[in-house]
Amino acid sequence: MSSPSIFDPPPGPPKHILCVGAAVMDTIFRVRTLPQGQGKVLPYDMLQIAEGMASSAAYAIVRLGGNASLWGAVGDDETGKRIIREIGETGINVEGMLRVEGARSAVSTILVDDDGERLIVPFYDPKLHHTVKQFTTGDIAAFDAVLVDVRWPALALQVLKAVKAMGKPAILDGDVAPDGIIELLAPEATHIIFSEPAAQRLTGANDIPETVLLLKQRFSHAFICVTAGAAGSYRFNNDGGKIEHCPTLPAKAIDTLAAGDIFHGAFALAIAEGMAPGDAIRFSSVAAGIKCGVFGGRLGAPLRRNVLAMNEIAYEP
Amino acid sequence: MSSPSIFDPPPGPPKHILCVGAAVMDTIFRVRTLPQGQGKVLPYDMLQIAEGMASSAAYAIVRLGGNASLWGAVGDDETGKRIIREIGETGINVEGMLRVEGARSAVSTILVDDDGERLIVPFYDPKLHHTVKQFTTGDIAAFDAVLVDVRWPALALQVLKAVKAMGKPAILDGDVAPDGIIELLAPEATHIIFSEPAAQRLTGANDIPETVLLLKQRFSHAFICVTAGAAGSYRFNNDGGKIEHCPTLPAKAIDTLAAGDIFHGAFALAIAEGMAPGDAIRFSSVAAGIKCGVFGGRLGAPLRRNVLAMNEIAYEP
Repeated sequence: MSSPSIFDPPPGPPKHILCVGAAVMDTIFRVRTLPQGQGKVLPYDMLQIAEGMASSAAYAIVRLGGNASLWGAVGDDETGKRIIREIGETGINVEGMLRVEGARSAVSTILVDDDGERLIVPFYDPKLHHTVKQFTTGDIAAFDAVLVDVRWPALALQVLKAVKAMGKPAILDGDVAPDGIIELLAPEATHIIFSEPAAQRLTGANDIPETVLLLKQRFSHAFICVTAGAAGSYRFNNDGGKIEHCPTLPAKAIDTLAAGDIFHGAFALAIAEGMAPGDAIRFSSVAAGIKCGVFGGRLGAPLRRNVLAMNEIAYEP
Repeated sequence: MSSPSIFDPPPGPPKHILCVGAAVMDTIFRVRTLPQGQGKVLPYDMLQIAEGMASSAAYAIVRLGGNASLWGAVGDDETGKRIIREIGETGINVEGMLRVEGARSAVSTILVDDDGERLIVPFYDPKLHHTVKQFTTGDIAAFDAVLVDVRWPALALQVLKAVKAMGKPAILDGDVAPDGIIELLAPEATHIIFSEPAAQRLTGANDIPETVLLLKQRFSHAFICVTAGAAGSYRFNNDGGKIEHCPTLPAKAIDTLAAGDIFHGAFALAIAEGMAPGDAIRFSSVAAGIKCGVFGGRLGAPLRRNVLAMNEIAYEP
């Protein structure tokens, strides 16, 4: 376990990743089965936790030994205070968080059943992301990489441009978004990790490797990967010009909520640390796979030593 | 409108009702249609509000011009602080609220669709109501009536007994509860308002008037009423020995969440004010009916002048 690993961080201080996007107060109920229409469902467990795409990714980075800063927006309400405080308590730098006057903080309810299936009810106040946080080049010079999600596109666009201009990794979490958002952000990203539904929506194709090829044709400047849940991830290998597959951990999923975000956070840190893209994908895949075995959204994000140990068990037996 | 009404309060200071039971942080999402199984539902409105059976009843009492105190339990968490603060800000006396160490506050998510149908996901920590709040006869001597729900049975039982011994109205919100709870509390109540599902579960009968007769046979010491949503309420008239029906307001329901609680609160206040039971039921029915036209759980509880005006329109044209 103590032998050197390709997943070890490089010498020097931890890399610092800026995450831009969602910060939400989630209420996660654990139920035996998901409801069908009206009535009452009695959950047997419940958790309230501040998370969201960029927030959970930032949490994964901190758990894996990196530094993370979060730029997101909350409302000027009690929930907003709580979101910032809870995320700050995890070690994520929240100095760049914005409190938007007259807006309500994002809240979401998620039901997770015993098969790991989910029902999500997310509420976003449109006013939350009307403003764009002001920043200077100096503000982002300290970061080694940036990861943006699709929740705050106007800010994400400016940040991607600024970071890319510095020659640093500018990573896009290409999840399902309103029409035009991915098309807006993708040209400015150096690495794009698409979710399967987003990849299918963008390409019109169903076959995952085919979506990878079509997306690579469209965004040829960037590293392209599509994550497909239990089916693993597929990426375009720029060296060989081929599609490569990385399977997930062979374990029953307890809770896949935030698994994608953990993947993106791990990937951003790995890229910032200089890991080769293929290794970074496997690192991220193991981190996300461990998360799926733990109920509680982002709380399942593993420590780096857990990723290393699990990688040895799963891939190097 | 300014003519005297049977719904006017008696001279003297407002009556003071003690409400015992649920205090919950509700998240209410407004959706076009309720979800069927897994996936994502996008709500078009959202409200977070501290309420619950006894809490919403207490709010109705305050809105109708009475005084209300709430005895309920919350956890020693941030949600608990928020529940107590929000309820206290409505004018309800919350000095008797308990914060239970090591317990989590009750939270609930409710989806309301465009037909007013509801999906409810309530979470109660069993530890929340293991303790019983200590009180003396002197503590409750100041109240003119008490209303208890089924959420905190051990405390409700002691309070009902103490209040009944003083010869004051001891009102039970007879909603669906774990087996044995209604049977435990009903003998100590002077007035019982059953919900239709609870009445059907207790009697095995489906026909509402029949459930009223069976419940009256079983709890002959008490005033008996069964509320049946849009079908109105049915009560046993002790004077004539007959079942009497009170229809609801003839309007489309927007949100029935907390309508029953508003009914119970209005009823408790009316009885404390000395209103005849039949008048008290109509008063409550109008108050609950007005609430059903307003989205937002207990927020729809009307002022007394609204009840009077609506009563004239609906019942005395």
